[in-house]
Amino acid sequence: MNFSVEQVDTRLEALRDAHRGTLCELLRIPSVSADDSFRPDVQRAADWMLKHFQEMGLEAQQFETPGCPIIYAQTPAKPGAPVALVYGHYDVQPPDPLDEWVTPPFEPTQRGGNLYARGATDDKGQMLTHVLSVAATLEAMGETPIQVKFLIEGEEEVGSPNLGPFIQQQRERLACDCVVVSDSSQFAPGVPAITYGLRGIAYYEVRLTGPKQDLHSGSFGGGVTNPANVLAKLLAALVDSDGRIQVPGFYDNLVELSDAERKEFASLPFDEAEMAEQLGVNGFFGEAGYSNLERRWARPTCDINGLWSGYQGQGAKTVLPARAGAKFSFRLVPNQDPAEITRGVQALFEPLLPPGVTMELIDFHGAPGVVFPPDSPYIQAASRAIQHAFGRRPVLIREGGSIPIVGELARALDADVLLLGWGLNDDNTHSPNEKFNLEDFHRGTKASARLWQEIATLSTA
Amino acid sequence: MNFSVEQVDTRLEALRDAHRGTLCELLRIPSVSADDSFRPDVQRAADWMLKHFQEMGLEAQQFETPGCPIIYAQTPAKPGAPVALVYGHYDVQPPDPLDEWVTPPFEPTQRGGNLYARGATDDKGQMLTHVLSVAATLEAMGETPIQVKFLIEGEEEVGSPNLGPFIQQQRERLACDCVVVSDSSQFAPGVPAITYGLRGIAYYEVRLTGPKQDLHSGSFGGGVTNPANVLAKLLAALVDSDGRIQVPGFYDNLVELSDAERKEFASLPFDEAEMAEQLGVNGFFGEAGYSNLERRWARPTCDINGLWSGYQGQGAKTVLPARAGAKFSFRLVPNQDPAEITRGVQALFEPLLPPGVTMELIDFHGAPGVVFPPDSPYIQAASRAIQHAFGRRPVLIREGGSIPIVGELARALDADVLLLGWGLNDDNTHSPNEKFNLEDFHRGTKASARLWQEIATLSTA
Repeated sequence: MNFSVEQVDTRLEALRDAHRGTLCELLRIPSVSADDSFRPDVQRAADWMLKHFQEMGLEAQQFETPGCPIIYAQTPAKPGAPVALVYGHYDVQPPDPLDEWVTPPFEPTQRGGNLYARGATDDKGQMLTHVLSVAATLEAMGETPIQVKFLIEGEEEVGSPNLGPFIQQQRERLACDCVVVSDSSQFAPGVPAITYGLRGIAYYEVRLTGPKQDLHSGSFGGGVTNPANVLAKLLAALVDSDGRIQVPGFYDNLVELSDAERKEFASLPFDEAEMAEQLGVNGFFGEAGYSNLERRWARPTCDINGLWSGYQGQGAKTVLPARAGAKFSFRLVPNQDPAEITRGVQALFEPLLPPGVTMELIDFHGAPGVVFPPDSPYIQAASRAIQHAFGRRPVLIREGGSIPIVGELARALDADVLLLGWGLNDDNTHSPNEKFNLEDFHRGTKASARLWQEIATLSTA
Repeated sequence: MNFSVEQVDTRLEALRDAHRGTLCELLRIPSVSADDSFRPDVQRAADWMLKHFQEMGLEAQQFETPGCPIIYAQTPAKPGAPVALVYGHYDVQPPDPLDEWVTPPFEPTQRGGNLYARGATDDKGQMLTHVLSVAATLEAMGETPIQVKFLIEGEEEVGSPNLGPFIQQQRERLACDCVVVSDSSQFAPGVPAITYGLRGIAYYEVRLTGPKQDLHSGSFGGGVTNPANVLAKLLAALVDSDGRIQVPGFYDNLVELSDAERKEFASLPFDEAEMAEQLGVNGFFGEAGYSNLERRWARPTCDINGLWSGYQGQGAKTVLPARAGAKFSFRLVPNQDPAEITRGVQALFEPLLPPGVTMELIDFHGAPGVVFPPDSPYIQAASRAIQHAFGRRPVLIREGGSIPIVGELARALDADVLLLGWGLNDDNTHSPNEKFNLEDFHRGTKASARLWQEIATLSTA
């Protein structure tokens, strides 16, 4: 095996420029799933994925959904060896606010050691490491040591509405021993990590409607209910001054952090003052009684994601707005149930609505949080592969973001899940100037190639 | 005098079509003062006014200011007779939201008996009634019975920042016995009114800044202060659940409504259920203990006028926004002081700011409320003129809107003020589909022509 691995490593070394070029090609396609006007570009990205898998010689096909297509591909079966399923997504977040990008979001640009583009790290760059490692393995060895399957969707950034049914329908096709997902971060530059927990999410939009049109705030102000005033009341009611969320029943089924976890998190090299400086803030507000890492990894949150009403232009407009709205979301931890949260939000908001305003509460998507056993053989295999590529054993962490489908994959396929983040915390995912460190892109590809070898040594019993 | 008045009325009757055409000409100029990109159009409107006065044979000139120009014009002096000063404005509110206009805001369109355009009633149409009445009087009689002066500014919709200094500098030129302003409404269709009180205003923008850029709400949520969450807290703190404003000291110097006023307001033909139906709402929320008219005319208010943060597009974006902001304003009544309100807002907000967010509070403009004695000879003269044109004696009312400069004119020129509203409450001032009833436009012009005659009978002692 060692001889083969060296061949693959040598091949990967030779392919660095080609790999960067391949990534740039995919990044140039603005596959924004949240905005229907980008739908043709989303399809172009799906086509690109399909063609790429076919050119690698894989059995590949596109599955239509009511939304964006799913691309599936696989290497030949390897009886007796474990099967790995790579899950990733080719869609990206909207690039707004556009004017804060140093270079355009869909023109990948290298500055320093980083490649800047929307989707560079989330998830095109990270997802491609596994595609490229399989291609290089096939080139160097003629075959992969295990069967690798790819499930690449186009709706992760809008909550994967069509992937759940697909997984249920295609359980046989997707059958595997472990699911591999690279859509998260290392703990710090030079400190690779395996993530054993993810937060869930419950995302909402609230729309308030008052008078049938905007009114003059002088002639009508005081006598007509102002939907923006009411919106402020609703949103302010979500969290108290200790950072505790006020949705009824919110903490009822929540699994508290164990003492061992709190101790482990506390031992990690994390400096809150340094984080404040990086973000340009003078301090932090969060749930009382928890450390910053605990708040971000293992405690639930409530964040307003968007807010709008009335006049947003220059100067003063004395308008009593007809409408006001907000997007807001909760990050959840085991065992909070998104459906119960929805009922709680409704119960919190409804008594706060005065006459003269009507509310529409839209439930965008929800997924529970997940935590995996950190001592599984697959996590140990991944740990060795990462040590080979990054020169250091990974730390075991949790992550604040959500990959809603991860829990569902684990349950539906009865598989272990490996969350192997090649990104960094300052990659500006979901923000302007998203980036991916190119060295990490290459290291991730190398770790991925090694991972197939390490998994091949495991029993499938 | 009667013979002359009949001549003027006859002339006005003959000029109806021409007057409507003149109004449409001015309405086609998008003189939006709040948005710098309309600055050339604002100048075009000023030029139009100047040329119009010159063509009437008036002594007219344009005064430059640091902002938009002021147009001044006058008929010849009439020693021994009172002097009237017409104050109006040629600027208009922004037309947003554009997609709610049935016909474009700057293409005046007649539907039913109404003319639809931004500025139709506020204030181009109402202001022009006095210009056209003077022109018709000059045509019919060769002179006006009193000297009429015109002070027409271009910054009323942004708080008249340059008019105050102009008035102080030009007190001699502007000297008069009464100021005539038509920038308000009749009490109801067929119920003309003279307004003896106006609310003041204090308008603010609050801007909150958190992290230096938008962040992923999964990776950072819970650990980083969210400016939109904080904004909701600040705005929710402004008004309590009884509609009482929580700014420290807000009610300290306020003049309460007299029993006589409350009785008079209660006797007016006003139906709250009808208003709710017109506005398309199922009820109202306002300050406990006051009627709808009292809340809108004679009680202070707090309204959020605009709100923005994060992602406002389609779908779900899991962003922790870097910034959040709002525009909000108070309507004031005598003797609330805008400067004290500003200090109160600062005092209310500052303790509510957690670490990790910085606040900028911008004080746009402020003006105290005003109330004039409802029994002055000028109000009685105006009452007779309105009865002549509208066929009914006007009721005496107050108005919820602000004409910030009215109080300043009254004080600086030591003059009575006549607030003669020709508009209607459903004219959609500051909203899409602003309109002006054309019959009221012509009646207002007729009342104005009669007003000069009625004022001529008053002693200037």
